[in-house]
Amino acid sequence: MARKLRQIEGSICAPKGFLASAVSCGIKDPNATRDDLAIIYSEFPTVGSAVFTQNEVRAAPVRLSSSYLKSTEPRAIVVNSGNANACTGHEGMINARAMASATSKALKLKQREVQVCSTGIIGVPLPVDRIEPKIPLAVEGLGRDAAHAEAASRAIMTSDTCPKEIAVQTKVNGKMVRIGAIAKGAGMINPHMATMLCFVTTDASVSKAEIEAATKEAVDHSFNRISVDGDMSTNDTVIVMANGAAENDQITRSGKGSAEFRSALNQVMLDLAKKIVSDGERVTKLVEVQVRGAASNLDAERAARAVANSKLVKCSWNGEDPNWGRIIHAVGYSGARVKEEMVDIYIGGLLAAKNGLATKTEIDKLSEAVSASEFTVGIDLHLGKGEYTVYTADLSPEYVLFNREEYSLNRKK
Amino acid sequence: MARKLRQIEGSICAPKGFLASAVSCGIKDPNATRDDLAIIYSEFPTVGSAVFTQNEVRAAPVRLSSSYLKSTEPRAIVVNSGNANACTGHEGMINARAMASATSKALKLKQREVQVCSTGIIGVPLPVDRIEPKIPLAVEGLGRDAAHAEAASRAIMTSDTCPKEIAVQTKVNGKMVRIGAIAKGAGMINPHMATMLCFVTTDASVSKAEIEAATKEAVDHSFNRISVDGDMSTNDTVIVMANGAAENDQITRSGKGSAEFRSALNQVMLDLAKKIVSDGERVTKLVEVQVRGAASNLDAERAARAVANSKLVKCSWNGEDPNWGRIIHAVGYSGARVKEEMVDIYIGGLLAAKNGLATKTEIDKLSEAVSASEFTVGIDLHLGKGEYTVYTADLSPEYVLFNREEYSLNRKK
Repeated sequence: MARKLRQIEGSICAPKGFLASAVSCGIKDPNATRDDLAIIYSEFPTVGSAVFTQNEVRAAPVRLSSSYLKSTEPRAIVVNSGNANACTGHEGMINARAMASATSKALKLKQREVQVCSTGIIGVPLPVDRIEPKIPLAVEGLGRDAAHAEAASRAIMTSDTCPKEIAVQTKVNGKMVRIGAIAKGAGMINPHMATMLCFVTTDASVSKAEIEAATKEAVDHSFNRISVDGDMSTNDTVIVMANGAAENDQITRSGKGSAEFRSALNQVMLDLAKKIVSDGERVTKLVEVQVRGAASNLDAERAARAVANSKLVKCSWNGEDPNWGRIIHAVGYSGARVKEEMVDIYIGGLLAAKNGLATKTEIDKLSEAVSASEFTVGIDLHLGKGEYTVYTADLSPEYVLFNREEYSLNRKK
Repeated sequence: MARKLRQIEGSICAPKGFLASAVSCGIKDPNATRDDLAIIYSEFPTVGSAVFTQNEVRAAPVRLSSSYLKSTEPRAIVVNSGNANACTGHEGMINARAMASATSKALKLKQREVQVCSTGIIGVPLPVDRIEPKIPLAVEGLGRDAAHAEAASRAIMTSDTCPKEIAVQTKVNGKMVRIGAIAKGAGMINPHMATMLCFVTTDASVSKAEIEAATKEAVDHSFNRISVDGDMSTNDTVIVMANGAAENDQITRSGKGSAEFRSALNQVMLDLAKKIVSDGERVTKLVEVQVRGAASNLDAERAARAVANSKLVKCSWNGEDPNWGRIIHAVGYSGARVKEEMVDIYIGGLLAAKNGLATKTEIDKLSEAVSASEFTVGIDLHLGKGEYTVYTADLSPEYVLFNREEYSLNRKK
């Protein structure tokens, strides 16, 4: 793992030339006490890249933004929370375009320079009549300080309990560059990808090819390795905009400065990915499942994902029960090659099972390890060099209670 | 679907020549108030077939029984509950053999004629010293009435709340034949297969090839289509013994009488499979997920399983919330080919979504449909002729509470 960079203030507004704002349209609550619309804007032209959900059912804003990005570099992002504008058909596309149009007019941009995102309830029409009139206000309110960035990070929250932001700086090709980001997560967190939005700004000068490759690599090592409830959202989006305001020599694909830039971008996304898991709906624990010694990396991934997604394993973590039997059992059905009599399992660094059998490690010590709010589960298959890590969480009774009634409540609003 | 046969009394003792018994060894509770050891015995030679877990981690009794069955037809089954004898290494194999040996001695059989099963906690040594002395008592207690069969069905229960048994009779090749069965399920119920034991007896005369093919077909249409929590057990076993005491002309593979016999066997296993889902740990609803119009049967299976295993979909059912958005979204990430604008979703027969969009069906009517203790979810992808059905259940807060602490509790006993 690369050296961790020192964090700086200001998240998406830390890089030069980026502004942010937030307003309320009354989508998340009718009294409009909480902001639910954010705009992020670059004063300068950017190169952009994005990764969108792999769900076959893609929300209207995802379809619109991905088509815009094919021909045009982005200058702004407009995001609403409270309604996902997903499963909303032709009307959904019209509404997503209306958001892009209103934002581009207020910012004097081309419509295709605006990326549109939505997050929230699925299958309910977007109340675009409440959103459009607020967009000029949001543009008027754009600012470049940390408070503006934080307001934007709060406006994109749905069932998140806290905003998620980060910024770092690093020297690349002799110049200091900054990377800032905000994200939201909470429900339906699974790789490929989570109900998850992440917006990254950087003032580094980066080539188009490099920004695309770096974004893909960072997403693969962060958001694609987290799992809360095993579901994949229709709206997941990561957008990166680089505006070159730091005036460094351009970072080209795998060229000079690329390693430093990618390391920083990876750190930013992994930090937010872990924050998303920790803040998963009614989650009490962040668990890092590390599989090594697998016959291949793919086998390691299968085993890690099976453990991370097992309801029974997650229940035992919630109960602070060091049940390694459920872990080996999930490994057993994962599809990975396994020799039971060779499997070692570590919980919080303590050897719970050796060669597929219980060790003499005291149960009280193991219980203490799973009582921590963060711990690792290490699984060594002793079959090869394959390895993979997934970041996941426990499953709580409160999660179920929390997820029981969303649709009826929203339809009756 | 074939005509449903009338049920008869006596489950595994309904077919001629089969006896059963149950005793307590003090595994499930130290005071030995609940039976936890059962024996099923055929007075006559049988042909047998079995389907075992596909988990790579296989419990000692599974390894032993499958090896015995390769060379020898079974005459008896000995089963304990409370401890799975899984992840118990070499000692586990010795203990499983000890159960077979003690049973074969008491019944004057060859050791390989005894199938051994265990169900319960994983990773804790089997207390075989408590089991062995009770086996002769169990053999002495063998009887052929319904009470003996029911006692056996209760002795194999773990977290099941009620025993699961069934028997039917049907005329095959001019003679009346009987099929009886008992099963246990509850936790970790997923296809290929569940923590699930099922023992089937029949007095039909059946060829070896036919009993094997019929067993595989019936398991594929029942136990492999149920899903409670998405986990697969290390111990799952279905064993079928046919002793020919009905003296019908032998049923041969796909020959005369095969259709009637298979239809009856399918009915028996499907009935028990549904009982297992309904009695899943803290389950409140039995849901039949029917996918049709898929591009292929495999696509239909992928879509049905994704919906049946989605934690968010299951939570909404628990909350009696007709959230079709979560259903289409699970279909979207299932890997099946999907055109969102063509998907129809029915809840309890009511059209909730048409062409991927909400219908005008009143939300109160949809809520009423998901309030039933049994309902269907129909999903038509309108892309082809592929179809598949999965039987599943909701996910309750009580399930999580129930599954929190098993290992620590058992290690501290």
